[in-house]
Order: sequence, then C-alpha cells, then structure tokens
Amino acid sequence: MSRLVMKFGGTSVADLERIRRVGRLVAAEVRSGKQVAVVVSAMSGKTNELVAWTDQAGRAAPGLPDSDDEYDAVVASGEQVTAGLLAMVLRNMGLNARSWLGWQLPIITSEAHGSARIEDIPPANLSASMDRGEVAVIAGFQGRTLDGRITTLGRGGSDTSAVAVAAAVGASCDIYTDVDGVYTTDPRIESKAKRLAKISYEEMLEMASLGAKVLQTRSVELAMAQRVPLRVLSSFTEPGEAGEDTGTVVCDEEEIMEKRIVSGVAYSRDEAKVSLLGLPDHPGVSSAIFGRLADANVNVDMIVQSRSRDGGLANMEFTVGKRDAARAVEIVNAAKAEIGFEEVAVNEDVAKVSVIGVGMRSHAGVAQSMFKALADKGVNIQVISTSEIKISVLIDSAYTELAVRALHAAYGLDQL
Amino acid sequence: MSRLVMKFGGTSVADLERIRRVGRLVAAEVRSGKQVAVVVSAMSGKTNELVAWTDQAGRAAPGLPDSDDEYDAVVASGEQVTAGLLAMVLRNMGLNARSWLGWQLPIITSEAHGSARIEDIPPANLSASMDRGEVAVIAGFQGRTLDGRITTLGRGGSDTSAVAVAAAVGASCDIYTDVDGVYTTDPRIESKAKRLAKISYEEMLEMASLGAKVLQTRSVELAMAQRVPLRVLSSFTEPGEAGEDTGTVVCDEEEIMEKRIVSGVAYSRDEAKVSLLGLPDHPGVSSAIFGRLADANVNVDMIVQSRSRDGGLANMEFTVGKRDAARAVEIVNAAKAEIGFEEVAVNEDVAKVSVIGVGMRSHAGVAQSMFKALADKGVNIQVISTSEIKISVLIDSAYTELAVRALHAAYGLDQL
Repeated sequence: MSRLVMKFGGTSVADLERIRRVGRLVAAEVRSGKQVAVVVSAMSGKTNELVAWTDQAGRAAPGLPDSDDEYDAVVASGEQVTAGLLAMVLRNMGLNARSWLGWQLPIITSEAHGSARIEDIPPANLSASMDRGEVAVIAGFQGRTLDGRITTLGRGGSDTSAVAVAAAVGASCDIYTDVDGVYTTDPRIESKAKRLAKISYEEMLEMASLGAKVLQTRSVELAMAQRVPLRVLSSFTEPGEAGEDTGTVVCDEEEIMEKRIVSGVAYSRDEAKVSLLGLPDHPGVSSAIFGRLADANVNVDMIVQSRSRDGGLANMEFTVGKRDAARAVEIVNAAKAEIGFEEVAVNEDVAKVSVIGVGMRSHAGVAQSMFKALADKGVNIQVISTSEIKISVLIDSAYTELAVRALHAAYGLDQL
Repeated sequence: MSRLVMKFGGTSVADLERIRRVGRLVAAEVRSGKQVAVVVSAMSGKTNELVAWTDQAGRAAPGLPDSDDEYDAVVASGEQVTAGLLAMVLRNMGLNARSWLGWQLPIITSEAHGSARIEDIPPANLSASMDRGEVAVIAGFQGRTLDGRITTLGRGGSDTSAVAVAAAVGASCDIYTDVDGVYTTDPRIESKAKRLAKISYEEMLEMASLGAKVLQTRSVELAMAQRVPLRVLSSFTEPGEAGEDTGTVVCDEEEIMEKRIVSGVAYSRDEAKVSLLGLPDHPGVSSAIFGRLADANVNVDMIVQSRSRDGGLANMEFTVGKRDAARAVEIVNAAKAEIGFEEVAVNEDVAKVSVIGVGMRSHAGVAQSMFKALADKGVNIQVISTSEIKISVLIDSAYTELAVRALHAAYGLDQL
C-alpha cells in the first residue's frame, strides 16, 4: 500500500474551519487507498505570540548557560496544539487518527536548540500506526535530544519534518502551502510568471537558497539526498481537485522530459554589501578577514576583490545577511591593525537577482545573455557569483523588479 | 538541605509581569537556603481557549474510540508554555533553572484521560536536578501513561501535581493562590470571616469537598495520606512578607494547639435534589435505584427516605451534581417498572450548607445548635447528612447567605 506524508503550514491550519478543510483533503487521500501521515505547523500567529513571550522573558544572566532549550519547550507547544486538534477533527469525520509529538515518535535531533538538525527517526512507531490504518498526525518543527529535551528545527522546519518522516517510512511527500506550486519567478513581481509542472531537486535547492520562499532549503537538501518524491501544492484546493496536473513535482533531473536552459528567476533583498577599501595587496589578507567572520558564525555569500587603479592597494567587497552587517563591521574594525584597510562601508540598498537552470551545464552563453539583458535596461552589476546551475548578480535594490522582469523575458519564461 | 515545592495558579502567572513576581518569590526561598521546585498552571485564560478549540473539533464519530487522549495533548500545552517561560525568567534573574514536563520528570498516571490519577513519580530526575542547585520548574496538571501518551488530571489538578511532587522528594508544599489563606467561611458572603492560622488535613478535606474552592480535594487527600506539610498563601505577597504568620498551614490535628469545635462554614450550590414519590416500601428498592446510578457513574451525595403518612408508600430524596440531574432522572425513569414509583421531580434551587470541625468528635450538641440557629432565622432543612467532623444540611438556595452568616455567628467564628 503506498504511503503519503502531507504537510500543512500555519495559514492552512489557522482556525478550526481550515483544520476541517485539511481534514477533507486527508480523508480524500485515505479513501483513495493510501496510508497517510500528516505533518502540521502551529496555527498561524501562534508561533509569533509564543516567541514574543520568550523575548519578554529575556536572556540568561551572565554566568549561566545561555541555551535556547526553554525557548524550544515554549515554542514547540504551538504544533502540539494543532496536531491534537487535527487528530480530533479526523476522528470527528470518521477516520481513525492519533497525534504524535516529536518526543513520542521520536524525532531525534542534534542538541542545537532553536535550529536543531534531525538525526534519526526510528520508523517502528510510525509504520505500526500507519499499518493499523491510523492517520498519524505529527507535530512539525520539533524533535527531542537523546537525553529527552525538546528541540525545534528553526523557522520553516516543518517542511524538513515532513520530508524526514517521508524518508523514514518510504513515503512520498506533498507540501501544502498558500501558493499552488513553484513559479518561474515571484508572481507578485511578474504577472506572466508560470507554474512549473516539474523542477529538479538541484534547481529547487538553488531557488530556495536564493530567495524563493516556497520551501525550506534544508527540506529540499534532505529530499534530494534521500530521493523523496516531493510535490508542492495549494491547501486551498478542494479534495479531488489535486490531480496529477496541479502543483509542482520536485524530482530527479532525469525525470524531466523537456529541458529548459533556465527554469526560474529568484531574488533576495536580505543581504548587505560590505566594502573594504585600500587593502594592502599581499597574501593572507583574505584569510585574515574571512577567518574572523567564520569564527563569529557570520555567513559570507558573494565575494569580489579588485585592484585599485592607482597602485598596490586593493578593494574587497562581500555580502552578508542584513542582520549580520553591523557585527561584520565590528569584527573587521577590531582587526583593522592586522588587516590594514583604509575604510569600511556598508550598503544595505542591494538586491541579489539569480537565474537558475540545469540547462546551463550544457549551454554556453547563459551569463552573456543575462549581462546583456540587464545592460539593455541600464542595470549596473556590482558583484557576480556563479555555480554550475545558477548565476547571481548583486544590483542596486531599486532595480530589483525591473531586473527580474527583464530576465524572465530574456530566457523566454513568459512563453512557457 | 530542606526542600520546598511552590505552586502557582493561573492568575499568578497570567502574564510576564506576574511571572516575574513569581520569580522574585522563588528567588527569596532559594536565597534562604532551600532547594526549590515550582509547579505552575497555564496562564489564566489559556486553558479555556484550548478547551474551546477542542469543543469545536467535536467528538469522535460513532464506531471510533471516544477517548480524551487528544484533548489532553492539546490542553497540556498550556502548562508547558508557563514552565518554559518561568525557567527563562529565573535564569534572567540569575538563578539556575530548567523546565520539566509531565513526560520528562516523569509523572506516571492512570490512563483515565481528562481526569487521570498520579500513580508514580520516580524521584531520581527531580532529586538530581535539585541537588545540582537548579530550580526545577514543573508543568502542573499533566502526566503521561506508561505507554507514553499525555494525560491531564482534571481542573485544579496542579494542586495535586504539587503535593505529589513534594511527597516524591520529601519536600513541604506552599500553594500560592489569589487568596491569602483558608477562611472560616467565604469572605464574599460574610465580611467577618477570619483567616485560619492552622487547619487539620481532615477539616481541609471536608472544606474542599463541601465547596471551599481554595484547594482541589484530591490534593488534600494526598497531602493527608503522605503527611506532606502544606501551606496556602497569597501570590500577591511580596518576597519577604511570607513569614510564619501569613497564610494557612494545613497539618496534623495534633499540631493544632487551640482546638475549636467548628473551624468553618462551607456551602455549595452545585447540587440538585431528585425526589422519588410513592415508592413501594419493601427491601431492595434502594439498591435498585442506587445500583443503577452507580453503574452510570452518577455520584449520589445526600439521601433521605421517609414514610408517607397515608399508608405503605415511601418517598426517597437524594442529591446529585447539577450537571448529572437530567441523566439521573432518565436512569430512574428507564427502570420505573422495576422500581415502581409514582412520580419523579428535580429541584435545582437548593444549596448545601455545612459546618466542619474536628471538635465535634468530643462535643455533643453541635447539630442541635446548628438546627436552632437555622430555625431562628426561619430556614427550613430539607435533608441532613453527617460525618464524624461535619454536618451538612440542604436548604432552599435563596437562604444560602443568610444561613452561612447565622452559622458563622452561632459557632463564634466572628470572634476568633
């Protein structure tokens, strides 16, 4: 009997009426003969309420261990409520069901409270529950450490819960969200954006990393590593409407017949550009800078180094998350004597725009057409970074929408 | 080192400001050299919100097991939130602390979801935590079954959690609530009501059973059985004010120096009177009636049987909880042929007023002065029931306040 994990986010379970709609979607899958597990998020707004209380409680006083263990105990309660309520609603609709919390299943995680990684899901409990004909309703976003403390997986972690559960019991995974699939770009910016029927794991991973918020990056990594068949679809679909032609299937590249050079255009305004001007041009400077940032857990994304025209001095520009920008400046300033730069500047008015597509591997000239399309619209490129299947450029954030639309047209995505 | 369990109810932890005041009370006890565990309820209003959602979710469809297991999973989340938040607040104030949920400690209970009984609290985890100098913050009202489902103990169950935890680790137990102790009667009815400095377990148990809502009955039973030193005091006291002369100590009768004949006057409007008229007067009738009610889990409290003047027929009157009254009538009507009564009537406008005191054991005439005091005010007694240390009468509920004040004066409680 085929197994399916269905995942519903916070807006899909925001109140009892919506939980009942989720119940109907689950019932339709059970009646079609599948063994079903459901992973749920907290009712929308609840996690924010809980997080606000933990903020008011404040951090631990100096000298005490400053762990997020209690944050996790508080915040994980949100998913617990939804799991219990959905199990009740399913029973009310005539389906056998029970809730499973992270500690009960169990979902064993690392001890990194607040952003723990799933390490193991022993499948025995869940398989037995599904074999008994129960719908297993699993609290997403949460797990427990080996020694029995509650952990959470970080924002959006329920996607990862769902994929990990699916991998543990050999199920496929349907992620229900408030959009009906993965689009060639953000439809709020380009109304001609098209829903993709299929996308490869690799492309989805780049899209998620580069700003498309439809799936948590780690959930895609995990689905790719474990080859979990993944589908993104809308929870506002009514039962029966979720046929083969809805949503977006995330799958192996080989399963996609018609190859595109570029599958999507993503953008992010979450980064800031840090510029170090007047650096001495000798070996060890880069390692002095980026070693210190890495030690402080500041993630650096794009980097470019350039020689200044007037002699031996160089400039270094790199991007970090906006919330890390001030800290990055502190860190380089603290080592100013050793690094030896003249000036540091931060620019937050930048956006990263990216084109993604597995077709790049076999097609030359993709970067060239990107640069030309942007130049034609008068968009200046500040930094470039590339991987095998994506090209990202940093631009003035005022040009974001213009650049996204220009690239969407340039690669023919308007005409899919 | 002496150990103390402090218990705080929902109004004492209603928001972060109040949780911080609880933190100050806890800190004062820690600084005085005690090992402290704290048992907390859900923030006031939260349990009601959660219960309302479970009501909306509805009962299981016919044919499915109709358990309160999911109700428990949902509702137990309220205490989880408070426990985590108080642990954070204590750390913020410089105290080492951690939260313990029912399943973590563990608090092992029966499988009676919604009103489970605590069966075992293995003391190892809690003792080790206290010995490490941590304040153990325990989620009240909840436990788990042997096979790992969450249970709750029924309304007011956090009192029982606190006493059971105290018994497990050899601690005394301070119950903080929104009144500053146990009173001779309800101060909202009789402004001359006096706080009792001490009361015996037996008296407290009768007071709780008979309508004084300051402590859950089961918590007093447990304290009495395990000889846990118990104190009731106000959470609106500031640290340092909670000296020996505040609150009410609940203790062994032998520890109370000045014995009173009557310690308190309690009342309850939660009962209804069921009257069966025109019963045949032969053996087996009582057992036919009360056997059926017991089978249906309907608790019967007071009973009186009387011969009617005009021949061999009898009348039977008994009281049940108001919410069971309609069901009790259904049950006796269903057996009308076998029991053979002429008429059944329900009266909900009744109140039970009781006087309680261990001194009754050695003093005659207590009942006589009760009846006289009521007769002097023109209060008619419908049913009487007594135990070794209490006398209860059922009266027209319109006379409740009048009767309570008359009895309070008659036994000299105004002059304590």
